[in-house]
Amino acid sequence: MSNPSLLILAGDGIGPEVMAEVKRIIDWFGANRGLTFDVSENLVGGCAYDAHGTPLTDATMAKAQEVDAVLLGAVGGPKYDSLDFGVKPERGLLRLRKEMDLYANLRPAQCFDALADFSSLKKDVVAGLDIMIVRELTSGVYFGEPRGIVKEGNERVGINTQRYTESEIARVARSAFELARRRNNKVCSMEKANVMESGVLWREVVTEVHQAEYQDVQLSHMYADAGAMQLTRAPKQFDVIVTDNLFGDLLSDLAAMLTGSLGMLPSASLGAPMANGRPKALYEPVHGSAPDIAGQGKANPIACILSFAMALRYSFDKGDEAARLERAVEDVLADGLRTADLMGPEGGSPVSTTGMGDAILAKL
Amino acid sequence: MSNPSLLILAGDGIGPEVMAEVKRIIDWFGANRGLTFDVSENLVGGCAYDAHGTPLTDATMAKAQEVDAVLLGAVGGPKYDSLDFGVKPERGLLRLRKEMDLYANLRPAQCFDALADFSSLKKDVVAGLDIMIVRELTSGVYFGEPRGIVKEGNERVGINTQRYTESEIARVARSAFELARRRNNKVCSMEKANVMESGVLWREVVTEVHQAEYQDVQLSHMYADAGAMQLTRAPKQFDVIVTDNLFGDLLSDLAAMLTGSLGMLPSASLGAPMANGRPKALYEPVHGSAPDIAGQGKANPIACILSFAMALRYSFDKGDEAARLERAVEDVLADGLRTADLMGPEGGSPVSTTGMGDAILAKL
Ligand SMILES: CC(C)[C@H](C(=O)O)[C@@H](O)C(=O)O
Ligand SMILES: CC(C)[C@H](C(=O)O)[C@@H](O)C(=O)O
Repeated sequence: MSNPSLLILAGDGIGPEVMAEVKRIIDWFGANRGLTFDVSENLVGGCAYDAHGTPLTDATMAKAQEVDAVLLGAVGGPKYDSLDFGVKPERGLLRLRKEMDLYANLRPAQCFDALADFSSLKKDVVAGLDIMIVRELTSGVYFGEPRGIVKEGNERVGINTQRYTESEIARVARSAFELARRRNNKVCSMEKANVMESGVLWREVVTEVHQAEYQDVQLSHMYADAGAMQLTRAPKQFDVIVTDNLFGDLLSDLAAMLTGSLGMLPSASLGAPMANGRPKALYEPVHGSAPDIAGQGKANPIACILSFAMALRYSFDKGDEAARLERAVEDVLADGLRTADLMGPEGGSPVSTTGMGDAILAKL
Repeated sequence: MSNPSLLILAGDGIGPEVMAEVKRIIDWFGANRGLTFDVSENLVGGCAYDAHGTPLTDATMAKAQEVDAVLLGAVGGPKYDSLDFGVKPERGLLRLRKEMDLYANLRPAQCFDALADFSSLKKDVVAGLDIMIVRELTSGVYFGEPRGIVKEGNERVGINTQRYTESEIARVARSAFELARRRNNKVCSMEKANVMESGVLWREVVTEVHQAEYQDVQLSHMYADAGAMQLTRAPKQFDVIVTDNLFGDLLSDLAAMLTGSLGMLPSASLGAPMANGRPKALYEPVHGSAPDIAGQGKANPIACILSFAMALRYSFDKGDEAARLERAVEDVLADGLRTADLMGPEGGSPVSTTGMGDAILAKL
């Protein structure tokens, strides 16, 4: 049997730096835990545009379809801000999501005990926070047609289309219910059914799936604006939140910021099972490419490392190895090790990207 | 010259209770400040549906078009949750916004000193917060066509259309720049130009209006997901935020919740000037109809009272009288008076809706 395969797309900005630490971790699992991966690498985002005039080549796209999991760093940067919409770095990422059909974006928002003080929220509001946002990732206003900027009379008009089919809603709802069963058994679904018909259908279908298949899970519904409020007011009331692509974009970033440490948060984007039973999968940190600190060895590699832990859990069924890696991260934090983004007002001296990688490897 | 006219639409839930206090304040201004209004009243929302089978009658709509300002309480309640989309309470409100063409929704998020402890955010993050969100209110995905739930093959599909014309963007951008000039001269515009063409056009037009007419104002752009993060992390970095209808719905609610006291926040929705020079205008509290506490005398009337203060300022050019009313509210809070929603964990005994109204009248 051949080794499981990984495609690494480090991308732009701090992507390559944080991914370098992940590669060392991958090597450690090969050398010490008998988990050897066939690793290939390629370009995505601005660097791919620089090399090939497109943020994702067809060859890289094809490779992504073949491997067992894709690990992505980050894309984008000011250098590419004035590029045409169709070749912006983000389009590389969106193409991967769409063509791999990665419909369930899992975004855990977890507050690490050692870091609860970093939140702009009061400690008791966020300490121990552990919620999972399941964001639909391949449909909605991100991909709906018609779209574009057209001329009507002598005016330009910007158009996008929010579009959800029943089956698109049902499959991501199932992902949320399945996850809830392995957590605290609660799902809150968010939309704007009071204003948008796509939200009316969303609520209906989630309710139908719940009735038919998941009555053991507790289901509630909330308007997305109220959801933003409740996430800010009392986030611990939630277990799993399921929502559409655009609301999920805002709400998962909001939830991430509640924890106060964006540099810590991983994500998984999962599709349907492949022939080998593994889901199509892409793992990436929630943080962006942070061009302001790129190349300075200041970036926090933990979000990217924890994304690899999610890969171990969701792609390779190695929950125990994932937990080992997560524990190593927690231990390092408990020891007081901090990258620059995690320095409180008390100061102290931050450890470098590599320094953090070293420490995590030592704990492993 | 005839008196300025007001149409009061108290609506559902706590709407009538909080509006009762506003009526006493209106009377006070008539008796003591020579500001007499011609006041008429009618139904909107669920109560209008109960009486007439529609959340807003044509007669009430026509009246709203005639008066100098509309004061609205709140709409909605669980009783109406199963109504058809087209007659839900919210449609009454949306029809008012659309037909009066109230394109600029002004949502101040202000943290009252006396209440800074109520926020779920750390005191230093929110104390002194004073931002103004300008939300486009008559277009975007709230009103775009095509929309609905259709059958394709054997699947239902939910569709909404995000649609913005150049002039729709330009006029709300102007509202934001004008407001910024009277505040701290900074506007941050939020969209998802990295994903949506309507966002690309939004950014372009805001930039053009800025270049042509408001170069003295500082303009920045942010993706809406980053905006949600930054509002949570460090809200005081903002002065005026301008954004579309849907992003504005979420972001203004998020901003409102930062202050910790939703019962305090007013809003104004303004359109183009009428023949008499006054803008078409509707004023309403940010909070909803709170059916769980309706009819118990527990509701906080301050948001609704401060909405009337906004009416004094924006419709009747009585900034000094508005400030008088706002000061009365601040004084009452400084005295420690609190409705039930403002009771901290220390307890104490809350004052009723009428009690709060009495106290504010006494300060006036
Ligand atoms: C980079 C951008 C296209 C992307 C999105 O909007 O989905 C990002 O914000 C995210 O949440 O992964
Ligand atoms: C009641 C509802 C239709 C409305 C909206 O979505 O605009 C409300 O949330 C608001 O923000 O005023």
